[in-house]
Amino acid sequence: MIIATVADFEVALAALPRPHEAAIAAARARQAQLTKPAGSLGRLEDIALFLAGWQGRASPALDRARAVVFAGNHGVTAQGISAFPADVTAQMVANFANGGAAINALARTAGLDLHVVPLDLDRPTRDFTQAPAMSEGECLTALSAGAATVEPGLDLFVPGEMGIGNSTAAAALCARSFGGEIAGWVGPGTGLDSAGVRHKISVIEKALAFHADAPRTPFETLRRLGGREIAAMAGAVLRARQLRVPVVLDGFIGCAAIAPLAAAVPAIADHCLAGHCSAEPGHVRLLTRLGLDPLLRLGMRLGEGSGAAVAVAVIRAAVATHNDMATFDEAGVSASA
Amino acid sequence: MIIATVADFEVALAALPRPHEAAIAAARARQAQLTKPAGSLGRLEDIALFLAGWQGRASPALDRARAVVFAGNHGVTAQGISAFPADVTAQMVANFANGGAAINALARTAGLDLHVVPLDLDRPTRDFTQAPAMSEGECLTALSAGAATVEPGLDLFVPGEMGIGNSTAAAALCARSFGGEIAGWVGPGTGLDSAGVRHKISVIEKALAFHADAPRTPFETLRRLGGREIAAMAGAVLRARQLRVPVVLDGFIGCAAIAPLAAAVPAIADHCLAGHCSAEPGHVRLLTRLGLDPLLRLGMRLGEGSGAAVAVAVIRAAVATHNDMATFDEAGVSASA
Repeated sequence: MIIATVADFEVALAALPRPHEAAIAAARARQAQLTKPAGSLGRLEDIALFLAGWQGRASPALDRARAVVFAGNHGVTAQGISAFPADVTAQMVANFANGGAAINALARTAGLDLHVVPLDLDRPTRDFTQAPAMSEGECLTALSAGAATVEPGLDLFVPGEMGIGNSTAAAALCARSFGGEIAGWVGPGTGLDSAGVRHKISVIEKALAFHADAPRTPFETLRRLGGREIAAMAGAVLRARQLRVPVVLDGFIGCAAIAPLAAAVPAIADHCLAGHCSAEPGHVRLLTRLGLDPLLRLGMRLGEGSGAAVAVAVIRAAVATHNDMATFDEAGVSASA
Repeated sequence: MIIATVADFEVALAALPRPHEAAIAAARARQAQLTKPAGSLGRLEDIALFLAGWQGRASPALDRARAVVFAGNHGVTAQGISAFPADVTAQMVANFANGGAAINALARTAGLDLHVVPLDLDRPTRDFTQAPAMSEGECLTALSAGAATVEPGLDLFVPGEMGIGNSTAAAALCARSFGGEIAGWVGPGTGLDSAGVRHKISVIEKALAFHADAPRTPFETLRRLGGREIAAMAGAVLRARQLRVPVVLDGFIGCAAIAPLAAAVPAIADHCLAGHCSAEPGHVRLLTRLGLDPLLRLGMRLGEGSGAAVAVAVIRAAVATHNDMATFDEAGVSASA
C-alpha cells in the first residue's frame, strides 16, 4: 500500500515538490520567439509553461494522458439526498466498462487512456450523520487505491468520479474544510428540486454537528465526511504531486476531494488545473478557495471527469502551439515595429 | 462570381434559410435518453442540437470541417495604427503555407482542413480616412472569394483572418454599424500602447466623419470601412448560411466582418457559434450585439481563426457525447427516482 499509515499521508502532504523552474524559463524563452504577438495566445501560453514546469522539459508532451473514474457508494443515501437510487453507481460502472458513458466518448475524443476503479460498491460507507464514513484503514485503502493509478512518466492525470450521494459528501467536506454558510456549498447535484436541496442542507448540518469535536486534520475530515472514491481522488492527486504529474481537476466533487488537504496546505493545488466550472453552485466558491481559474465554463454538471476531459482538448491546443509553431527567425517574419 | 452584384448580396441577406426543426426535435429526443442526468452536459447539449438543426440530421457529423484564413492589406496602415509593419501580412501568409503559424498547429489538433486565401496583398485597400476602402467591384470580388471557399456538404466552417491594420477596420465597422462611444470599440490589437490606442481612436473618428453621409447599408459600410479579408469572411458566412453550413466565428475581427450585416439583419448570426471571447476589449460588446455567448474565454487575441479552432475541440466533444453515448435502455441504467 502506497499510503500505509496516517503518518505517510501527513508526511507526503508536508513535503510537496515544486515545479522545475529551469524548464519554465526555457519554455518562456521559446514562447517569446514564436510567430505571434507576445502574449496573444493568452492562457494557452500559461498552460504550456505550467506543463513544462511540472514535466520538467521546455517542450511538454501529452503522449501518456490518463483519466481514472473512481466509483464508491455512500451510506448517507439512506437520508434521501439523491434524485437517483444508489444502484445507479454500479449500473454506471457497467456502462463505463461497456464504453457507453459520457466519459468514454470524451476520453476517446481527448486522447485519454481511461481506467475505471470501483471501490467496494457492495460495502457503502457509513451514514456520516451517525458515524465516520470510513475507518482509518478503509480511508487509507481508498487513498492508496487512488495513488496506485498514477505512474511515473504520465504526462497528465484526470481524476473522475461516480457515486450516488457524493455531492452531499463533497458539500460536507467543503463546509468543514473552509467554513462559511452551509447553504452556499449545497446544490441540486444530479437533479434535486428546491425542497430536496433544503433537506440536503439539513443532513449536512446534522453531520457537521455530529463530527464537531473531531480533530480538524485533513485525514480525519476526509475519512469522516468523504467517501471511497473521494479519498481515492485525494490519494491520486497527492501521488501525482510526488511524481510531478500535472492534474486536471473536474467538477465540484473532484475539487472537494482535495478541499481538506488544501485547507491545511494550499500549495496542494499548484500542480492542478481546474478543467471547468460546474453548474453546481458551490463549485465557484470552491475554486476561489483553491486559487484556481477554470479553463471552461460550459454549464456541465455530470462528474465522471467529463468537464476535465473536455478541457484536455484546450490543453492539447496549448501544447501544439508551443511545440509546433515556427519562430520569427525560422519563418522570416518581422517582430513588432 | 457567386455574389456578382450588390443586389445579389442584398437578396441573399434578405432570404436567410432557417434550421431544420425536425432534426432539432429528433436530436432533443435522443439527448433525453442518454445515460446522464437531464441537462448535465450543459452547453455540449445545446451545441449538438445547434449542429443537428443546421446539418439537418439528428446525429450531426464533423467529418468535413474547414478553416480558411483570408489575408488582406490595409491602406489605413499609412496612419500608423499598427505595432507591426504591413509586410508582416505577406510574411505570415508564407508562414501559413509552411505550416508554422498558430492556426496550422491548432487546425491539425482540431481536425480542420486549412486553406489560406491571400487577397491582392500587393494592392492594399485605400486609406478609409480619405476614400472608401474598396470600390463596389473590389468588394464584390472579395465577398465572392469568401463565398467560394464554402462548399455544400461541409459540416463546419471557421473563417479566420490575417491583415496588419485590420483591428482598426473592425472597430470602424462596429462603430458605424452599432454606434455607441467609439473608444469602446477600440483596443490595442496586436500590441499598441495607450498612446497608440488614442491615436487609433482619432483615426477612426476621422474615418467615420468622412463617410458620415454615405448610405447606411450593409454593403456600403463593408466596402467603405472594411478590407478584402473582412469582406471575404462576410461572404463566406453568408454563403455558409445559404448552404446551412454551421459557422464558428473567431475573434473581434472575424465577428466585426458580419457587424454591418447583423445591424440590418440580426438573424445572420443564427447559424454561428462564437468560438471564444478575445482579449480585445471591443469583442465583449460586439458579441452582445450579435447575441452570441462565446464558448471559450482564454484571453487569446491573435486572430487567424485561432480561438475558433480551439473551440472546435469543444464542439467535437459535443458531437462525440451526442452520437456515441448509450441510452438508459441500452445500458440498463435506472433513470431518476
